[in-house]
This record gives sequence, structure tokens and C-alpha cells, in this order.
Amino acid sequence: MFQELFTPSVQHSLDLVGIFVFAISGALLAVRKNFDVFGIAVLAEVTALGGGLLRDLIIGAVPPAAFTDLGYFTTPLIAAALVFFLHPEVERIQGAVNAFDAAGLGLFCVTGTTKAYEYGLGLTASAALGLATAVGGGVLRDVLANEVPSLLRWDRDLYAVPAIVGASMVALCIRFDALNAVTSGIAVVTAFVLRLLAMRFHWRAPRAWHRSSAKAEGESESST
Amino acid sequence: MFQELFTPSVQHSLDLVGIFVFAISGALLAVRKNFDVFGIAVLAEVTALGGGLLRDLIIGAVPPAAFTDLGYFTTPLIAAALVFFLHPEVERIQGAVNAFDAAGLGLFCVTGTTKAYEYGLGLTASAALGLATAVGGGVLRDVLANEVPSLLRWDRDLYAVPAIVGASMVALCIRFDALNAVTSGIAVVTAFVLRLLAMRFHWRAPRAWHRSSAKAEGESESST
Amino acid sequence: MFQELFTPSVQHSLDLVGIFVFAISGALLAVRKNFDVFGIAVLAEVTALGGGLLRDLIIGAVPPAAFTDLGYFTTPLIAAALVFFLHPEVERIQGAVNAFDAAGLGLFCVTGTTKAYEYGLGLTASAALGLATAVGGGVLRDVLANEVPSLLRWDRDLYAVPAIVGASMVALCIRFDALNAVTSGIAVVTAFVLRLLAMRFHWRAPRAWHRSSAKAEGESESST
Repeated sequence: MFQELFTPSVQHSLDLVGIFVFAISGALLAVRKNFDVFGIAVLAEVTALGGGLLRDLIIGAVPPAAFTDLGYFTTPLIAAALVFFLHPEVERIQGAVNAFDAAGLGLFCVTGTTKAYEYGLGLTASAALGLATAVGGGVLRDVLANEVPSLLRWDRDLYAVPAIVGASMVALCIRFDALNAVTSGIAVVTAFVLRLLAMRFHWRAPRAWHRSSAKAEGESESST
Repeated sequence: MFQELFTPSVQHSLDLVGIFVFAISGALLAVRKNFDVFGIAVLAEVTALGGGLLRDLIIGAVPPAAFTDLGYFTTPLIAAALVFFLHPEVERIQGAVNAFDAAGLGLFCVTGTTKAYEYGLGLTASAALGLATAVGGGVLRDVLANEVPSLLRWDRDLYAVPAIVGASMVALCIRFDALNAVTSGIAVVTAFVLRLLAMRFHWRAPRAWHRSSAKAEGESESST
Repeated sequence: MFQELFTPSVQHSLDLVGIFVFAISGALLAVRKNFDVFGIAVLAEVTALGGGLLRDLIIGAVPPAAFTDLGYFTTPLIAAALVFFLHPEVERIQGAVNAFDAAGLGLFCVTGTTKAYEYGLGLTASAALGLATAVGGGVLRDVLANEVPSLLRWDRDLYAVPAIVGASMVALCIRFDALNAVTSGIAVVTAFVLRLLAMRFHWRAPRAWHRSSAKAEGESESST
């Protein structure tokens, strides 16, 4: 019922933009990790499609959209090729890439929540899956690159909160039967702007209180 | 047919206890890794629900229980909040947490095996999935925290064996048509007690024989 | 329709050979990482069955073959036992193991592509899943062992390209209605020989052009 929030072609174009910018972030990390051209392509694909793939497996939408829409599959390859040949230029516009990544975050948390609800999940579960759609690709990217996911690190600007806000707005709109192109658009923009502000003002989330036992910050190796 | 081993409300309460203690172990690792509050929540959710999620995807029970039962989703958040505010106190009762974790291990290996068999898997596959349900969340926790899974490390007390024993007992009971609340309970308690004994007496599993080529223990970087 | 490319028993035997050699590679890495006997068994299972499991989840073939065919499950355990007891001997025949691994790579990229197409995916998506089937287990192995996947590293001999070539040959054969036991066999052998040549002559893939910003090769910790 919500499938036509935007006209299909607008929706599809927005999806491809989100996939493209996420793929750029994956490809850039691959270059920094010194991966070869196939590593760049794999990390671009996983970052761009991983979140949606996870969502589709969980809601039972198989085969996932990532494998049925050729555009979803080829877009990350274009991003990977761009980074491969023009890496310093792409680095130089890192600010623009970050802004696009914020747009992808806003878009994916909204479409992820909507799609999960369409497949019969409850409102809370739908919002949780919307969050997973938005951040899942980045987590997979960091796991494959053998890094601590930047989503989890306290020394990174807020990334989860904008997506949580956007997904919750969609869930509330569904609850009060007010989901349409306008309210969806507002949710996307809200998440997008929150993420931009978080980067601009370096908003961070608090760590645990009373971390007395965490005196040795490097002691993580001795954990359970 | 085995769904009512215990009364539904008893079963559900036991599930929530298992989810809660697994979430505590995830949240504690997140604090030790210096993650922020969202990292703590994410690691609590993944540790608590990851094993069951994996099992449900494999047996085709979508959407997984983790996304259809609101209690499953909110319990890890409560555990995360507790650890966030009362971290040193929770650390201090690490012994109690370990005992609860052992209880979760026993419970999940039994319910995981039973559910897999209900969905039509063979006895061996069901026992394997019971093991995966019990240990999967902890492995995902360690992968996300960028650590070698403690399940795989030789310098940790036995963790897989109690779950293997519990899951195998359930599979044998099914084979001889003797699965009921009593035999299920015995399997849970056996796995639980074995894990307690393994921690008490530091039981370890052997490493490969003749590790002559493993002289340089840190040489793992050069592996294929 | 393509199910009987080879006679079922030949196909099954080839599958088991592929699973066995992939399991050996997993078990050997586990020994090098100093894991205990259960870690060796887990890494053997994941390496051998992970790629096919991923493919089956994506195409909706649940429960996956890994959990319905007892031979698929027990073969990695035999490989793990072999490595556990005869580790130095297996290391000594590393060349033979690598050749078998190349055979597994060729076989899995072909059967993976064919199975994905049978389940209704398009040609490009089928070839992509064939590649994922062939390399997925190795990536999971490296992630669990907390290493950078060797698939992504530039300092390893080509691994993805032979699988891409094999999977693409199958897709082309399907496109031109020419897939049969002979053409499938040619695709397997082509991927196999390409991988052997890549190891023999240390073929490597290029890294990104103009990596001026990658001057500090160890700076990867500071990545996004």
C-alpha cells in the first residue's frame, strides 16, 4: 500500500543515489586499506547492498532486491571504478561524499522501515529494521575490512541517532495513518539534516558511566 | 508437537532470561571496548538475538522471532541500560553473570534443537543448529567487537562442549521418542552444570597435535 | 532442468571433494591461529559450507543443503580430524592442498551459478552468486579468524578472477542454450587452470591509481 510513496521512477532513482554514495564510502575504505581492484569492488558492493540484503533476508523477501535489479548490482561497480581511477579527486571532495552518505542514511532508514512494515512486521520491529537497513552496509564494510565498526565507536560523530529518528518518524506516521510522500520526505530530510549537524558540530554519544574499570583503554584484549 | 514442552508462559520467561543474560555479556564487552551508548545497545541486541536469528533464517522461520516478539527486542535494551548506568556493579557480580550465561547456554541449545527439528531438519542437523543457536550470538558479538571469537580460542574454558552435550541429549530423546518437559529440563541442567564445572576447574580443549610449525605463535599474519 | 549436468552421484562426489578441500584450508588456518579442537572444527565447517549457505539463504532454498545432506556436514569434521592429528604432514603437502582448493573454486563457481539460475535469478545475478558461493566460505573463515580476508588483499595471487571467469562462462552458456556436462566441465577446468597459473606466476590485481594519499601504508587505522 505504501509502495507508491513516491512515483516508482523517483523512488528507484533515489535508491540508486543512496546505493552509489554508500558504495563510494566502501570503495574509499578499500583504497585506504590497500586492497586490490577486486577488494575495492567487493567492499563497494557489500557497503551499498548489505543493509538491504540483511533486511530482505529477515522479512523473507527472497531473492533480495539486490539480486533482481541489475541497476542495484552495477551501480556499486561504477562507484568502485570511479574511486579506482580518480581516488585523490574523490578524497578531495570528501565533504560532498559525506553529505551524500547522510542523504543515503536518511533515505534508507525511511524506505527500510516502510518495506518491513509492508511485509507484516510490527511498528517497533519495522523501525529497528529501517535502522538496520541504513547502518547494516557500513557495519559489514568495517567487519570485512577488519576494523571496529565506526557505528559502535564513541569517537565518531552520531550516526545511529539520525537513522533512529527518521525510522521512528515513519513508524509514528504509519501508526497515525499519516504516511504519504510529504511525511516520508520530511522524515528523510530530518535524518539527513541531523546527520549533517552531527558532523558539523561533532556530536558524540556518551559512554558508560563510572568506567572506573576501563582505566586501561587498551585492555580490550583481555575481555571475555 | 514439541512446542508445549513447558507451558508457553514458562518457556517464554526462560527465553527472556536467556536473552537478558546474553545481552549483559554483550553490553559488558562493549563497555570494555569503550563503545558509546549505541554501541552498547547494538552489541547487547546482537549477542542476545543473533544465535536465534541465524537459526530462524536457516530453517526458514521468517520473520524471525526476534522481530515478532516485542519482549525479545526490548529485553536487551534493558540489559544495555543497566550496564550503562551500573557498569562497575555488574562487573562485580561477574560470577553471577557467568552463571546466568551458562543457564542461557543450556536453555538455548535445547530450545534451538527442538525448534529446528519441528521445522523438519534431521536429528544431526537439528543438534548442530541447537549448538549454533547457543553460541552464535557470542560469535557475532566478538566479530563486531573485532576480537577473535572466544568460542574458538584454546585459552578459554570449554563453552562448545556443554552445548553439544545438551543438544545431543535432545536429539537422542527425539530419536527414542522420549522428549518431554522432564527430559528437556535434564538436558538444560546437564549443559548448565557442565559449563559451571568447566569454568570452576578451567577445563580446556586440546590444540592440534605436533604443532611443530606453530613455533612462532604470532606468525598468524602470514597465513593463507 | 540443469540439475543433471552430471549424474547425481558424480555431482555429489565432486561437491564433497570441494567441501573437503575448503575444510582443510579452514582447519589449517585454525591451527595457525592456535585455536583448540572445536575452533578447528568450526572453522572447517564454516569455510566448507559458508559459501553455499549464503547462496541458499539468498535464493530462498531453505533449509540449505548444508543442513539437509549429512555428508555435507560430516565431511568437514573428517577434514578437521585429519588436520588435528596430522597437521605437519598436511602442511607439507600444501601444494597439493592448494591445487585441490583451486579445484573446489572451479567447481563451486559453476554449481553456484547453475543453482542460482535454476531458482529464477537473472544471468548476471546468477554469476555473482556463483562467485559468492566459491569465495564466500573463505571470506567467512578469515572474518572469524579476525584477519583481513585474503580475497581482498592486493598481496595475494588472483583468486576472484578465475571464479568470475568460470561463473561468466556458465552464464554465457545458459544465455546461448549451450549448458551441458561438457561445457560445464570446460568452465570448471578453465577456472581451475587459471587459479593454478595465478599461483604459479604470482599474478596480482592492480591497486587504485594515484594512491598519493596512501603514502603511509599502515595508516589504515585512521580510516572512516
